[in-house]
Amino acid sequence: MKQVWIFDSTLRDGAQAEGISFSVPDKLKIVKALDELGISYVEAGNPGSNPKELEFFQEVRKLTLKYAKLTAFGSTRRRDIAVEDDRNVQSLLTANTPAVAIFGKSWDFHVTDIINTTLEENLRMIQETVAFFKTQGKEVIYDAEHFFDGYLHNPEYALETLAAAHAGGADVLCLCDTNGGTFPQDVYQITKLVVEKFPVTIGIHAHNDGGMAIANSIMAVEAGATHVQGTFNGLGERCGNANLCTIIPNLQLKKGYHCVPEDLLVKLTSTARQIAEIANVTLNERDPYVGRSAFAHKAGMHIDGVNKSSKSFEHVSPEAVGNQRRILMSEVAGRSTVLAKISKLAPHLTKDSKEVDGLVHALKELEHQGYQFEAAESSFELFVRKYLGKYKPFFELIQFRTIGEQPSAAGHSSSAMIKLAVDGKEEITAADGEGPVHALDKALRKALEVFYPELREVHLTDYKVRVLDTGAATASKVRVLIESTDGKDYWTTVGVSSDIIEASWIALVDSIEHKLIKDMEKKMEVFL
Amino acid sequence: MKQVWIFDSTLRDGAQAEGISFSVPDKLKIVKALDELGISYVEAGNPGSNPKELEFFQEVRKLTLKYAKLTAFGSTRRRDIAVEDDRNVQSLLTANTPAVAIFGKSWDFHVTDIINTTLEENLRMIQETVAFFKTQGKEVIYDAEHFFDGYLHNPEYALETLAAAHAGGADVLCLCDTNGGTFPQDVYQITKLVVEKFPVTIGIHAHNDGGMAIANSIMAVEAGATHVQGTFNGLGERCGNANLCTIIPNLQLKKGYHCVPEDLLVKLTSTARQIAEIANVTLNERDPYVGRSAFAHKAGMHIDGVNKSSKSFEHVSPEAVGNQRRILMSEVAGRSTVLAKISKLAPHLTKDSKEVDGLVHALKELEHQGYQFEAAESSFELFVRKYLGKYKPFFELIQFRTIGEQPSAAGHSSSAMIKLAVDGKEEITAADGEGPVHALDKALRKALEVFYPELREVHLTDYKVRVLDTGAATASKVRVLIESTDGKDYWTTVGVSSDIIEASWIALVDSIEHKLIKDMEKKMEVFL
Repeated sequence: MKQVWIFDSTLRDGAQAEGISFSVPDKLKIVKALDELGISYVEAGNPGSNPKELEFFQEVRKLTLKYAKLTAFGSTRRRDIAVEDDRNVQSLLTANTPAVAIFGKSWDFHVTDIINTTLEENLRMIQETVAFFKTQGKEVIYDAEHFFDGYLHNPEYALETLAAAHAGGADVLCLCDTNGGTFPQDVYQITKLVVEKFPVTIGIHAHNDGGMAIANSIMAVEAGATHVQGTFNGLGERCGNANLCTIIPNLQLKKGYHCVPEDLLVKLTSTARQIAEIANVTLNERDPYVGRSAFAHKAGMHIDGVNKSSKSFEHVSPEAVGNQRRILMSEVAGRSTVLAKISKLAPHLTKDSKEVDGLVHALKELEHQGYQFEAAESSFELFVRKYLGKYKPFFELIQFRTIGEQPSAAGHSSSAMIKLAVDGKEEITAADGEGPVHALDKALRKALEVFYPELREVHLTDYKVRVLDTGAATASKVRVLIESTDGKDYWTTVGVSSDIIEASWIALVDSIEHKLIKDMEKKMEVFL
Repeated sequence: MKQVWIFDSTLRDGAQAEGISFSVPDKLKIVKALDELGISYVEAGNPGSNPKELEFFQEVRKLTLKYAKLTAFGSTRRRDIAVEDDRNVQSLLTANTPAVAIFGKSWDFHVTDIINTTLEENLRMIQETVAFFKTQGKEVIYDAEHFFDGYLHNPEYALETLAAAHAGGADVLCLCDTNGGTFPQDVYQITKLVVEKFPVTIGIHAHNDGGMAIANSIMAVEAGATHVQGTFNGLGERCGNANLCTIIPNLQLKKGYHCVPEDLLVKLTSTARQIAEIANVTLNERDPYVGRSAFAHKAGMHIDGVNKSSKSFEHVSPEAVGNQRRILMSEVAGRSTVLAKISKLAPHLTKDSKEVDGLVHALKELEHQGYQFEAAESSFELFVRKYLGKYKPFFELIQFRTIGEQPSAAGHSSSAMIKLAVDGKEEITAADGEGPVHALDKALRKALEVFYPELREVHLTDYKVRVLDTGAATASKVRVLIESTDGKDYWTTVGVSSDIIEASWIALVDSIEHKLIKDMEKKMEVFL
């Protein structure tokens, strides 16, 4: 199997994305995650750009990495000075990484009009900087910035810049589509020509401004490139970089290239999600391979097809990348989907049962109100239980009241009072918190723990608010999703209301009831 | 200029996306928006799938469309019955559109294993259904489902299905990559062969499971296809369909094809955002051409380059598609960005002014807390005013209190009391509403309108909540964005707090102060 070296730039080019700012601990976590997936190179920062970067490079040396070669990124020396005297070159050395990525100009217009030097001096800047790092024992990846634009404007000069890097001893010549507007056919032909001309590893670094960064990377590999730069989840300035989460399985599962160790590919989805979490961005649900919707089927005909044979509507199996197939509930899906979902709770029901009909109907009504159960399986299960009469409330709410106040009394701006009853026994209590929902959450638990001590194990791990009809402004309907854990399992519940407190309340109660039912079922198993 | 016909399927294939459900009025608005952009075909639904669809087709006939040809979508007749007796075929006729898109099976495996018929009967189903609609005077687009997968498994049979549609009189043979996993080179070669074989319009319909739907569509056009199907914002089942928002400018601005009328292309960004709004999905900020970040620059070197010449880091000009360049505020951006942003308020300041230094510092601190001013220019302006001493509060809050209650007294579950003072005169009032923020919003206005009657013109048009550190669950910090209008202008303000009421309060106060300052400035202009 032919090797393609994967070079991740999430921490460098990815950090250029709007809204992204990594702390030193964030960066260390990401390096570790990439190494555990078996990524070959991790470009971890530009040590010349700010002091935080140097602090990071000191810390990262303490990690033991199995697969990833750390790489520091920087520019060729500035014009008209000696390499040794360049401050950025010196910071690159200080970073003390086994590999360095050096970028230089390949587009004549950039040389003359942006960095204001001569075409000859630019060639010297490239060759001398590369040669300097080779004498320091580094592996040198030369990033030819704007290579494709440069080639299309002045092919001779663009090739001369590569020749300069090659003469300096570069280990990799990486062709960059910096503005991201090159077309796949051009990438293929130009890369092919470079591969034939230079007997070293040729790389591709694509941006997504034409929406074709992934295809451009694949086309370069088909033309002979064996080093692919990109970022996780396609993070990057403007429209982002080539998304490695798509490129890796495209090459490895479908073209037979070797990118990461065979047995690690199943970690792809969890790594992508972990990095999105650390970067505090929402992973695009429709992202190929790793998105939540990547293997989600909604059309009735597709669901039917996938049930007969998964390849009928899936290009690869979701398990190969650690993702999973999902069958969605919707007007389009209909009875057979509902039936599949409730088979555990009500194995006696069939497609023609009156209850299934009623359930589909009730479900549509809830969807119409703004409920979505796709991400809230536990609320869906409770809804089915209630519908089928397999449910009894665990407590009765007598009243709650939340109070928010400004200026606030010392500490917390909100407080909540709650009064409830379990089997006729009343309990009243109060709590304060950060905002009304937090206070209410605390008060509810406090009251219920008197009756159900096992609730002490439960805490919320995620709280999401989605405004549904933004046009109605502060009177808008909101959907609240709550994820809870008891240390063993995770579950998600949902509530919808035009009052955020009420929506949160609905989801909180579902979360608690799910836990109590789950524990009851476990206890019963012993007797079955 | 060579024409490429754009066929939009947002309302049909796009509606298969997870979380999407269009109402009849939604669909009518989208048809209108697409027509106003000059899209050639609008595939508006599958009349056989549910009664809502037929209601829509009755309504849509009342619209006068200038460019868009309405198209209804459906399957070939079922096996072993006459075309006229097929219920879906009849619904397609009832939809009464000038064009129909008929899909049939091109992959032998689907014929034998999914719809369980013979290869011969499938050919008859295709030819007879197409021929039937031709006798009814329709323009017929034949969608060859799974064409590329089919071709790669059994090229002879795949081509026979096209020949059957051609024999039936199809106006367009559209090659579908239904599972979305085909590679660009294969799309190119297979499309080229089909173009050479059939003397009719050849189309492409690509899905994005390999992340290459846009490139695949472009490659098909380069191979001779002149009809491109896709959806706005790439909506669609699993990983979505080919994104027309990218394909149109790729072809029209960069390859010289004619897709929409020259003077309408500037509507692309607003159309994309309007459709996202109607579909109630968040437009991916990094989407090429139309995303908020598509022309956003953050790295200092890139900002410097773009200032010297826009083509240095932009593949096309943002104005060409109705988008705009944005220079982002961030640790990386620094002083010159801040300076550009505040030049209106403080024209005397230079890069070396102490105030600019202080502002950059204060700004970083706020960003660290979770503020983002990229979308809240009005809050940014108020922040600068406060920092430079060009600000005086319009009122003093003495106290507010919000109360939420369950079970709630008749009607509203929340109420708010507010006491404030303007120039020493106190005002106390109360209001109820849908949730605490709505009640507080109403009470605040009610109290202030006594002093500032012009606030009666203001209302909120958008209210967004983003949970920043979801790990802290209900105690998480939230960022609230509020968009307001007075009927003439729109402005956006932001607030951050771990208490959603406080975050909303901050943004509400900024919104009101922005309005009052704006009106004051207008009054003053007369005297200058």
